[in-house]
Amino acid sequence: MELWNIKKGMNEMKIVEVKYAPEKPNPNNVSVRVLYDTEHAHAAHIELKPGESIKKHITPTNVFFYILDGKGVVEIGDEQQEVSKDMLIDSPANIPHRLLNPGDEVFRLLVVKAPRQTAPTRLL
Amino acid sequence: MELWNIKKGMNEMKIVEVKYAPEKPNPNNVSVRVLYDTEHAHAAHIELKPGESIKKHITPTNVFFYILDGKGVVEIGDEQQEVSKDMLIDSPANIPHRLLNPGDEVFRLLVVKAPRQTAPTRLL
Repeated sequence: MELWNIKKGMNEMKIVEVKYAPEKPNPNNVSVRVLYDTEHAHAAHIELKPGESIKKHITPTNVFFYILDGKGVVEIGDEQQEVSKDMLIDSPANIPHRLLNPGDEVFRLLVVKAPRQTAPTRLL
Repeated sequence: MELWNIKKGMNEMKIVEVKYAPEKPNPNNVSVRVLYDTEHAHAAHIELKPGESIKKHITPTNVFFYILDGKGVVEIGDEQQEVSKDMLIDSPANIPHRLLNPGDEVFRLLVVKAPRQTAPTRLL
């Protein structure tokens, strides 16, 4: 079909493919790959293998999680919910939260923060 | 495993599941579901069936696309790229862009806008 004959312009479009994005060291020792980082927003891909987790912490900006694959548990404040593929979870600023994969399959999600975080994340 | 015994707090966590989010009427007559809409950011799920497209338009804020399923074509300015699952594409403010599904499978993506759009999208 004609449209698959891609025309490329002078400027390279900025595309990041998850599997080629470098993993960023983190205190949870899980796979975190930053995909987008601008003045206004930040997006990262997180993969939690069975038994892995992101420990309880406070993020001083609004966050949402979009579940890409598998299922896991999101805890925000006092509440826990089981979540699965194609759910979006709102995690407002300054409420302690954590993510867990108590299952036996990989749990993958996109984490989006906006506005941009200016103070550091606080581990609890 | 113990953690699947979910404890629920007093406040309901805000979770939106794509398939239950209402479709929003739009000039392209494609499936657009708004999942997140706050002062600082906006996220929507778009599904393009084979042959469907989002026609060329200008969005007066920064956008990124995260491809959830299938493959399609993203055009930004003069450049077209074929994109597929687990790619993130940066689409800066005020550059005309469009999305196409010239293939024969469903193409699904998450569209995230930040900061919040204050002027209307302009169709071209």
